[in-house]
Amino acid sequence: MDLATIIGLVLGVGAVIGGMIMEGGNPMSLFNIPALVIVMGGTIATAFISFPLSRMLGMAGVIMKTIFESGHDPRHTADELVAFAEQSRREGLLSLESKAQSVTDPFIKKGLLLMIDGTDPERLRTILEIELAAREERHEGGIAVLEALGGFAPTLGIIGTVMGLINVLSNLSDTSTLGHKIAGAFIATFYGVFTANIFFLPLANKLKQKMKHEAHLGEMAMEGLLSIQAGDNPRIVREKLDGFLPPKQRSGDAAGGGGDAGAGRGARAA
Amino acid sequence: MDLATIIGLVLGVGAVIGGMIMEGGNPMSLFNIPALVIVMGGTIATAFISFPLSRMLGMAGVIMKTIFESGHDPRHTADELVAFAEQSRREGLLSLESKAQSVTDPFIKKGLLLMIDGTDPERLRTILEIELAAREERHEGGIAVLEALGGFAPTLGIIGTVMGLINVLSNLSDTSTLGHKIAGAFIATFYGVFTANIFFLPLANKLKQKMKHEAHLGEMAMEGLLSIQAGDNPRIVREKLDGFLPPKQRSGDAAGGGGDAGAGRGARAA
Amino acid sequence: MDLATIIGLVLGVGAVIGGMIMEGGNPMSLFNIPALVIVMGGTIATAFISFPLSRMLGMAGVIMKTIFESGHDPRHTADELVAFAEQSRREGLLSLESKAQSVTDPFIKKGLLLMIDGTDPERLRTILEIELAAREERHEGGIAVLEALGGFAPTLGIIGTVMGLINVLSNLSDTSTLGHKIAGAFIATFYGVFTANIFFLPLANKLKQKMKHEAHLGEMAMEGLLSIQAGDNPRIVREKLDGFLPPKQRSGDAAGGGGDAGAGRGARAA
Amino acid sequence: MDLATIIGLVLGVGAVIGGMIMEGGNPMSLFNIPALVIVMGGTIATAFISFPLSRMLGMAGVIMKTIFESGHDPRHTADELVAFAEQSRREGLLSLESKAQSVTDPFIKKGLLLMIDGTDPERLRTILEIELAAREERHEGGIAVLEALGGFAPTLGIIGTVMGLINVLSNLSDTSTLGHKIAGAFIATFYGVFTANIFFLPLANKLKQKMKHEAHLGEMAMEGLLSIQAGDNPRIVREKLDGFLPPKQRSGDAAGGGGDAGAGRGARAA
Amino acid sequence: MDLATIIGLVLGVGAVIGGMIMEGGNPMSLFNIPALVIVMGGTIATAFISFPLSRMLGMAGVIMKTIFESGHDPRHTADELVAFAEQSRREGLLSLESKAQSVTDPFIKKGLLLMIDGTDPERLRTILEIELAAREERHEGGIAVLEALGGFAPTLGIIGTVMGLINVLSNLSDTSTLGHKIAGAFIATFYGVFTANIFFLPLANKLKQKMKHEAHLGEMAMEGLLSIQAGDNPRIVREKLDGFLPPKQRSGDAAGGGGDAGAGRGARAA
Repeated sequence: MDLATIIGLVLGVGAVIGGMIMEGGNPMSLFNIPALVIVMGGTIATAFISFPLSRMLGMAGVIMKTIFESGHDPRHTADELVAFAEQSRREGLLSLESKAQSVTDPFIKKGLLLMIDGTDPERLRTILEIELAAREERHEGGIAVLEALGGFAPTLGIIGTVMGLINVLSNLSDTSTLGHKIAGAFIATFYGVFTANIFFLPLANKLKQKMKHEAHLGEMAMEGLLSIQAGDNPRIVREKLDGFLPPKQRSGDAAGGGGDAGAGRGARAA
Repeated sequence: MDLATIIGLVLGVGAVIGGMIMEGGNPMSLFNIPALVIVMGGTIATAFISFPLSRMLGMAGVIMKTIFESGHDPRHTADELVAFAEQSRREGLLSLESKAQSVTDPFIKKGLLLMIDGTDPERLRTILEIELAAREERHEGGIAVLEALGGFAPTLGIIGTVMGLINVLSNLSDTSTLGHKIAGAFIATFYGVFTANIFFLPLANKLKQKMKHEAHLGEMAMEGLLSIQAGDNPRIVREKLDGFLPPKQRSGDAAGGGGDAGAGRGARAA
Repeated sequence: MDLATIIGLVLGVGAVIGGMIMEGGNPMSLFNIPALVIVMGGTIATAFISFPLSRMLGMAGVIMKTIFESGHDPRHTADELVAFAEQSRREGLLSLESKAQSVTDPFIKKGLLLMIDGTDPERLRTILEIELAAREERHEGGIAVLEALGGFAPTLGIIGTVMGLINVLSNLSDTSTLGHKIAGAFIATFYGVFTANIFFLPLANKLKQKMKHEAHLGEMAMEGLLSIQAGDNPRIVREKLDGFLPPKQRSGDAAGGGGDAGAGRGARAA
Repeated sequence: MDLATIIGLVLGVGAVIGGMIMEGGNPMSLFNIPALVIVMGGTIATAFISFPLSRMLGMAGVIMKTIFESGHDPRHTADELVAFAEQSRREGLLSLESKAQSVTDPFIKKGLLLMIDGTDPERLRTILEIELAAREERHEGGIAVLEALGGFAPTLGIIGTVMGLINVLSNLSDTSTLGHKIAGAFIATFYGVFTANIFFLPLANKLKQKMKHEAHLGEMAMEGLLSIQAGDNPRIVREKLDGFLPPKQRSGDAAGGGGDAGAGRGARAA
Repeated sequence: MDLATIIGLVLGVGAVIGGMIMEGGNPMSLFNIPALVIVMGGTIATAFISFPLSRMLGMAGVIMKTIFESGHDPRHTADELVAFAEQSRREGLLSLESKAQSVTDPFIKKGLLLMIDGTDPERLRTILEIELAAREERHEGGIAVLEALGGFAPTLGIIGTVMGLINVLSNLSDTSTLGHKIAGAFIATFYGVFTANIFFLPLANKLKQKMKHEAHLGEMAMEGLLSIQAGDNPRIVREKLDGFLPPKQRSGDAAGGGGDAGAGRGARAA
């Protein structure tokens, strides 16, 4: 479970509602159905016009994933790949066949099976790169929807507020309810800016972070697989993969230089 | 027919008009001919200054296509290419000549005919890449117009509102109609922001999605055609093309690893 | 003559002035010399600070060209290059010498003469690429000025309005002319937003379109020239150049596949 | 210690508070707890939603580093590498082993050890490039958080102000405290714009500068290491590395051309 | 001396002050010390936080250079390089040694000396590219400071205005000076927008133009030096370098095609 997202959502809604109460305002005065219809209806409409239907239907899943799913551990993947490199050196590439079946990451599994099948390095790299690029494109699809929602919500808030002000100005005779009506007009802006900045844009950011993390992991896995196929020394494989890890997660034996090199690097680049 | 676009357009207009009625406003009060002349006339003018005449005349068609045309199925294209790869392996490249005549996608048709003609791989790739790049450029032409309209409409709305306010302020004596006149000035802003955010920008987004989809399909087709020409094993062709498909649409037999690899991948990357 | 630009300029000014009159305002009330001095003087000043003097002096010519000059026909250039390819195949590269002298496009002329001179392909490509890049850079120079003017004009409008409001607020005693004075302050904003969005930015867009068109033409010409030098079959030259043309302008005989392939492509990608 | 950052922070806060006092205002009137809760609570919330928890927890360290740590001296690194090149030429690459152990920069240490280990140039370059790219990615992580905070803070200020105005407008009866309440609403905007522009965005800039500096240093070190491995003449190594240094820090003996060439260059490119 | 920059600065300040006087305002009413402290103090503070101290200290020199120094003539450099190519062809590369000592451009001097020293082409290109990239990076450093100042100044203007309004609203009792106080609050916005748009951003633009010009010149020089080293025919060197020149400055004898080709090209691409 991705704790930070949940902390953030609770904190964000809490801070705004809490601040309102501390100011002596009534949070219920922020509840306004016509403004909700204009801003949320309009924002969802822009997303439907902007994207294919299938993408829209998949968004609930994407948002849930962003809120609840946590990432993978790159160190674990690196260790696994180095172990494969060692076995491949000792017992030959084909000995990895049984291991490949139990790998949970489908990208690494596909790479190992293609390698065992005897796919030549050039083709293997092409296939793995296509796979990574296509995965990234799918993620970008979800991010694009959230960013569009975050971009259109404030403008629809402005549309709602301008419409509200036109309503008020067209009928200035009843001055007793004037303040209340103008307040109502501003609620549309509040809805637009609030949903964009507390939900849509930060969730798009989180999804982007996850995409980057997975792309990083994917590149590391590809580098590792190609290194195994090339028959690289496991120490060289380790060195290559270590470069992808944050300093604290590294194996710490830089080219036989011992732990203090890793420690120094960890201290500096942290 | 692209259902999402139509749902979105109806929902967008409905939400804004509906919200207005729920607020007790009269939707007809949003109808203001001078504001319409300034904002729509001015916006169309900026597009005419910005783009060649031929592009402007083609925009109605581009917009209709964006609203009504649905996309192609990448799985179908992948299957077709794998079938060609199999036939080419069994019966030779020239046996594809009769098939090529019945291919509906002109890009694949062109590629097959050039291949059968004996064009060398280097030249074939160059010709296909030029074709893809030029197609993308044509699509970008339509997107650029919609984005320009979406960018200029709100600023023309501001021009209309500022002009309206100058009118009002130059003649403050008649206070009875003041509110009405200021409301009128704001309608220009409403027109600019509304048309930009409900029509122009979301339609530009949809067109961009379609362009990306076609570019993706085109790249897949090119990869497949070059793989056929290179005489790749149909299994390798399948692996390459699978990388371009969303996990749910894949063939599911990753390098002989059986269906569960595909299933696992489908479950994870969905 | 570039009709669209002129239609756009007339329509843009007409829509704004027309809308003003329809609203019952007096267009002359938009005429305000101090605001004009601040906004236009200031905007031109920013351009002088931003760019070299020689560039500024050439801008009148650039703007005239954008308004009055129409583009070249890519189909014509493609036909010419295919004709050269045919002659070169039949009678040898040197036979193009007399033709080269009558070519009006200096880029193609330069390419042909260098080719006839026996420049090797590698060097020819380098020289032509340098030529294209430098031409693009010159165009970008003009676009940059227009975009800078379009970016600074609205901010100078804001400067003018803020200064006007400071004037008004510093001397609130004379309430009778208050409305008129505030209206005057807003005219500066009007000038800035109007000139930026009806003149500077759309003209920058048009110039960008022309640059893209010329760059496209230049790339096509380079591709064609190098293909002629390489001794490519004229059919292959035609196929390559066709990729650069919009589908409706193509020759229609895709790799011997006959007219219906071209027609199908034309119908689809239009 | 990075003096500029501290001078800037003191000056920024001082200028704003000082200007307030000079205007005769009471700085304490800028202190408003509900606005603080909304703006700071909401901004931190958006960061939690946007980024992984581990990143958030590391931000305090990143900010401290930006404020207090000063950069490395590129001239020193260049001299060290040229000395290695000289020793390697005189006594062989393996003679660097003892030196390598005492190198403080872990990147150069790793490179030297891998070189002594006999890693081939191709692999060495790949490993060093991965290392540099991963380090840059870690830095970009911190910058992204600060930029997100700087982007969200002003919008949360607007949310606070709009909410405050809704509060005020919903209850216009008590006119005596009206000014005070509206002032309170504006404090939220002040908090958002102030924190973004005095803290978050400038600190993100400084971090970006440090990242660029380290990347530059890293590239220089890589260029130098590969040059040492290739057995380049130390003079050539010096020439290469000099290119990375600002003119004033160069060694001044350009290809044997003597000090005046360096001086001329220094004078011109300063 | 860069005349355009000085004309622009005088014109910009003159237009704004002049317009103010024409409107009947008193330019001295724009003078407000607290606003100056907040906006200029705060803006300089953001620059100190954003950049290293050494960069800040060098900014006065960078700004002076932007205002007073004019550019180099590319035609002159091209002629010089072609003369070197001719001499090198006639008398050998080593004959350039005496010439090299008197070259004023340190980049060309360094290139010539390295060439005479017998540096191989691959290494020479690397060293020259590093030199150009590092010079560009130094220029970008100065541009970044000016752009940051131009970005932060308006937001500090807003901070000053919001603070001023909070002051006014907190103490509404004294209505006689209300207008004057609100005017004072707006002066901060004026300072921020004015300094950003008349000084910082246009000067950043000019510096960017100068950087581009020098980079262009540098690329031309590198192309020429490498061409000389490769022993290219001086005519080919001339053709390559001509591509970098604006059409009016070219030598006019395109591949023996005579002056009219150059003239035609000049007329068209002007």
